[in-house]
Amino acid sequence: MSETRIGILGYGNLGRGVELAIRQNADMKLAALFTRRDPASLTPLTEGVPVYSADAVADHADEIDVLILCGGSATDLPEQTPRYAGICNVVDSFDTHANIPQHYAAVDAAAQGAGTVAVISGGWDPGMFSIARLYANCILPEGQDYTFWGRGVSQGHSDAIRRVPGVKDARQYTVPVPAALEAVRAGENPELTTRQKHTRECYVVAEEGADLAAIEKAIVEMPNYFADYDTTVTFISQEELDRDHAGIPHGGSVIRTGKTGAEGEDQHVIEFSLKLDSNPEFTGSVLVACARAAHRMAEEGQTGCRTMFDIAPAYLSPLSGEELRATML
Amino acid sequence: MSETRIGILGYGNLGRGVELAIRQNADMKLAALFTRRDPASLTPLTEGVPVYSADAVADHADEIDVLILCGGSATDLPEQTPRYAGICNVVDSFDTHANIPQHYAAVDAAAQGAGTVAVISGGWDPGMFSIARLYANCILPEGQDYTFWGRGVSQGHSDAIRRVPGVKDARQYTVPVPAALEAVRAGENPELTTRQKHTRECYVVAEEGADLAAIEKAIVEMPNYFADYDTTVTFISQEELDRDHAGIPHGGSVIRTGKTGAEGEDQHVIEFSLKLDSNPEFTGSVLVACARAAHRMAEEGQTGCRTMFDIAPAYLSPLSGEELRATML
Repeated sequence: MSETRIGILGYGNLGRGVELAIRQNADMKLAALFTRRDPASLTPLTEGVPVYSADAVADHADEIDVLILCGGSATDLPEQTPRYAGICNVVDSFDTHANIPQHYAAVDAAAQGAGTVAVISGGWDPGMFSIARLYANCILPEGQDYTFWGRGVSQGHSDAIRRVPGVKDARQYTVPVPAALEAVRAGENPELTTRQKHTRECYVVAEEGADLAAIEKAIVEMPNYFADYDTTVTFISQEELDRDHAGIPHGGSVIRTGKTGAEGEDQHVIEFSLKLDSNPEFTGSVLVACARAAHRMAEEGQTGCRTMFDIAPAYLSPLSGEELRATML
Repeated sequence: MSETRIGILGYGNLGRGVELAIRQNADMKLAALFTRRDPASLTPLTEGVPVYSADAVADHADEIDVLILCGGSATDLPEQTPRYAGICNVVDSFDTHANIPQHYAAVDAAAQGAGTVAVISGGWDPGMFSIARLYANCILPEGQDYTFWGRGVSQGHSDAIRRVPGVKDARQYTVPVPAALEAVRAGENPELTTRQKHTRECYVVAEEGADLAAIEKAIVEMPNYFADYDTTVTFISQEELDRDHAGIPHGGSVIRTGKTGAEGEDQHVIEFSLKLDSNPEFTGSVLVACARAAHRMAEEGQTGCRTMFDIAPAYLSPLSGEELRATML
């Protein structure tokens, strides 16, 4: 297996997570950074790596094997992934679950047309959590799926709080309800409402003189985001927020319970869980493994769009099949 | 995807587990049972399924798409899997970890020669636990692996106790040490000895008048099996054994902890765990999913030996790629 030369497009939290992950993989090399900002304004952690304009990917396509797209799912990736799949092999972390079929179709058309490989929706959800669901459903066709998220920071919910009048800054944690998690793990197959599965903890910095009661009410009653949950609002200072809530932890559990036996008398619980100090660094690490697989599939002559469902686990590893069988099977 | 016609060779606990799993999968059909015993002596659960001699597989190869081999790893599978891979597509659960490379080579040669697909070492360890290790190692290259087994029945250890003079019957449970499991889950990266990871609980039925102290001593001091563990021996009656210890539960956890970040400052914990009421029924369910993949790979014209490392997750599922992306990603 040759070295894989990676390009990163977008140098936010996820882009930096990818950059850090590349350093942990001897067969991976960061070959170029692409940005929509002024290239001169970026200072990559990795010494000597060239920074180019996002418009110049085609000019530098021969310098990279795979381009990892680190933009957002709302507006960046629906446009970027098909566009760049028309130029080179790409990997993205598109995570708007409802729009995946449509994204897949657009990316597949572009990749088939250009003869490239595109891996979409890499990461942990979608990604590792999806794979856990899939394996568990194949093994236990008669059963029930549960997904719990957290304890972890939801960027979207934090942003929603920041838009409330009088709020200066905020951090929101999604927290699974321990009793619900335990009931599922115990195989009790509970029917759980949204409220019974997760609580939401909000740490809010208010502007001076703001009406705290009004802010709290605006948050806990906010439809879609908070109204269906037991939400707690804690007002803290900017110093406290910066000191105690700077990290971006996340995680969660995918659990499937199912029955086997002549009369369904035997119960089984399959659980896959993650506890992550840094959501973007972990996601970046998954994307780098996906890039290895994309490179390998492209070298085999494969073309088109793939998800982690379509990637044999061995393709993600730097080890040979022989090494894997001898050490990990 | 067409229906997959399954043959089962060997009708013990695992063979019956496979038979039960087939009933839960609408695209699977039990087409034939093969046995080394007198075919007339078997009464399959499934009505109308023909029972043939194990020597007659070649005569009935056109009646099945995949043969699931349900023999033991010590003496059956090293001989059976290469032999039957020379006749038809096969799946086995070969679990002697140290001999997998050699088994792979023998089976691959046979399958390549005959143009068949052979999936070896399906199940949960090797199998799902191996996959969990592989994914976790690809994502977190800098980290530590832990595997805990149990609480579950070890057939090999139960058999070893039964060979002690004065023992009539026995059941041995492998039990993870809760404090060790918690330390690993908390990311403390402990260095653990064999004794610190698992304890062994033995439930023993003694023959009348047997020297209980001598039996206990023989068990707890038995090299390889028990000497390296904290082992407890509890004498019970045959009735109690039959009533309270008839099941074959098992399970365990594969955990990888690893670090990311510029200075390794962020820690992550990946855990895959199983809690199984019936080890053979769960293993049988995994083998049936592997048989679906084997059939699919064979229909694509693939040949040779595969492990679950080489099987893209989507191949295990009865759903189409489109359905999977829409419902599980």
